[in-house]
Amino acid sequence: MREFKRLTPYREALEMMLKDLGELNEIEEVPLSEAFGRVLAEDVVSPMDSPPFDRSAVDGYALRAEDTFPAREYSPVELRVVDEITAGEESRARVEPGTAIKLMTGSKMPEGANAVLMQEMAERDGDIIRVLRPVAPGQNVAFAGEDVRKGEIILRKGQVLRPQDLALLKSVGFRTVKVKRKPRVGIIVTGDELIEEFNEEALKAGKLLESNSAMLKGLVRQYFSEPIFYGVVPDKEEAIKSVIEKAKKENDLVLVTGGSAFGDKDFAHRFVKLLFHGTTIKPGRPIGYGEGVFIMSGYPVAVFAQFHLFVKHALAKFVGAKNYEVRIRAKLTDRIPSQLGRYEFVKVWYENGEARPIKKKGSGMISALVESNGYIEIPEDSEGYLEGDIVIVVIY
Amino acid sequence: MREFKRLTPYREALEMMLKDLGELNEIEEVPLSEAFGRVLAEDVVSPMDSPPFDRSAVDGYALRAEDTFPAREYSPVELRVVDEITAGEESRARVEPGTAIKLMTGSKMPEGANAVLMQEMAERDGDIIRVLRPVAPGQNVAFAGEDVRKGEIILRKGQVLRPQDLALLKSVGFRTVKVKRKPRVGIIVTGDELIEEFNEEALKAGKLLESNSAMLKGLVRQYFSEPIFYGVVPDKEEAIKSVIEKAKKENDLVLVTGGSAFGDKDFAHRFVKLLFHGTTIKPGRPIGYGEGVFIMSGYPVAVFAQFHLFVKHALAKFVGAKNYEVRIRAKLTDRIPSQLGRYEFVKVWYENGEARPIKKKGSGMISALVESNGYIEIPEDSEGYLEGDIVIVVIY
Repeated sequence: MREFKRLTPYREALEMMLKDLGELNEIEEVPLSEAFGRVLAEDVVSPMDSPPFDRSAVDGYALRAEDTFPAREYSPVELRVVDEITAGEESRARVEPGTAIKLMTGSKMPEGANAVLMQEMAERDGDIIRVLRPVAPGQNVAFAGEDVRKGEIILRKGQVLRPQDLALLKSVGFRTVKVKRKPRVGIIVTGDELIEEFNEEALKAGKLLESNSAMLKGLVRQYFSEPIFYGVVPDKEEAIKSVIEKAKKENDLVLVTGGSAFGDKDFAHRFVKLLFHGTTIKPGRPIGYGEGVFIMSGYPVAVFAQFHLFVKHALAKFVGAKNYEVRIRAKLTDRIPSQLGRYEFVKVWYENGEARPIKKKGSGMISALVESNGYIEIPEDSEGYLEGDIVIVVIY
Repeated sequence: MREFKRLTPYREALEMMLKDLGELNEIEEVPLSEAFGRVLAEDVVSPMDSPPFDRSAVDGYALRAEDTFPAREYSPVELRVVDEITAGEESRARVEPGTAIKLMTGSKMPEGANAVLMQEMAERDGDIIRVLRPVAPGQNVAFAGEDVRKGEIILRKGQVLRPQDLALLKSVGFRTVKVKRKPRVGIIVTGDELIEEFNEEALKAGKLLESNSAMLKGLVRQYFSEPIFYGVVPDKEEAIKSVIEKAKKENDLVLVTGGSAFGDKDFAHRFVKLLFHGTTIKPGRPIGYGEGVFIMSGYPVAVFAQFHLFVKHALAKFVGAKNYEVRIRAKLTDRIPSQLGRYEFVKVWYENGEARPIKKKGSGMISALVESNGYIEIPEDSEGYLEGDIVIVVIY
């Protein structure tokens, strides 16, 4: 049997793959209401100061701070209220010495005023308010440009847009945003042994229920991309060849599961010029990549590891995504031995600052994936980690 | 001016709200390919063992381990290959003493065999393989039910479905899954001062660009729910009353931003029987809740805090969601002072095990939300945390 002549070290394989893939050029302009989870195509510069004017941060009285400096509880300062405005209104009056203007949270500061006294701190009596304590200049004022300055870069290219990013864009007048087109990812599942529906007879005769398509569709969606499923293809050289060619034409990336090794029925790698085939990752060693096509394992757990170690980063490269991973520190609850020379993908359950390795072994163990919420990577030159070691967990 | 007579402590307000809201009963059966991010409506029991039969975990030769016990490199054991099957095929032959059957990863174990020799470990010569080392019973065999047992609960009600959960469901024969209907959330933005499009004149005259709708639509989607936006409503008693009534009829939950305090133009709370109004949270103190309606602040930063401290948990209650938050431990890079009696929502940037508080203050500071990726909660009885303290960060 042919075996891999050389296992490409993980980092080397990753670099080769990332170098081979270009960033997508196509940009879509979408309404903010549809931009959640999309990836920003360019830096965004604010067209205005925000707030655009000095405004009150509270409901209260705009005044001259100097006027209130002598104020004491036993000897209040009295000011005359010369106007009253609501939010969104502008006062035509000016705050002259000895006067104040009543306004609301968000109101534009009237001319002459440099501070706001909170409504509940003033004693009102007709046109007069009594101020019991001094107000500092600038108090309760939100200054123009305090949140964002005109011309400032407020969001960077590659940002996976979150609700607060959309709010910031809207607050400076944007109604749409330029995002990268979603990468299209073709999914091809191969294997004569696979069936799509529960069938007791077929299972008894050795068939297997296919589960990679459901998993990969979800994973592709999770990483800002659009899955297109090409169905389960039997292990026939011609069938596999033609579906791979079709999928390559229609997608930015193609994922083929099954047939990644060198068995008699492993055809997929014959139709793709692979940059690497066989890596140090464990599980998922037989992964191959070339021409925008990943040849992946058949077993879901291996496919899952291959997705997180390779495919996820390819999708991020397509759109230039930056904040697409949550990497946290945790203390290991148990030691994890690791084989020298293998780049291990270890499933863990993270909770309360601790990472507990999931012990179930075997690439058929989908339940182990379900019991985990993240993974640890152990490089080739490490024999593993000890109980109590601090490790980096990537949350999924 | 009326003020809150009493600020309801955060936990108390949260409990009141959660007690008032029931779980949604409506269940939808959706194809697995559309179930990513939906919430499981009931425990799922596996209808079968997985694998359904003992199968080979590698490409190789099924044999009787006992036959190989005497095998040494200088004195190999020879076995005769009596059949050859591919994955998905079943051998009709039986492994008798002195024989082996060639099979592939995933093949059903033939009768009589109890172990598999990896293909690359065997020397093949015509019908004969030479075994150089003993094979242990069970080696390279994935046993029936090893991943999942028939009758076992494989996923629990309330699971927010992830790609690996979908794979597990598919691997035991499901093609659809029962999930909770998405909660419908009506969003009403109030305020005479708000404009929807950039307009320099209007801004100069004191108007404000509305940004809560974009943020809330994103947040609602993030938490497995469907937003319905009712537009920006002016501060007119009748207009607000009628849109709240309409939205209450059409949604499971209604969010009204603006007008949560007791200003002359704060109408919303007059039309809803509130269980609480005014809480210890900071920012976002004036939040009120009753009859499935949240009366929220106008300022985006306060609305954001109110969403995470209250609304998110309400949405989770509707669908019984369990794994909807990532809570991690981190070391504070700076001290955070906190006001006694206030339940503070502090924005932080989490990276590399450390949480850095975002210093920008003010509920108008949307840029501070953008610069953060999580929050810390500081209860009423705490005066804050010191530099180096270990805190819980909720990632968003």
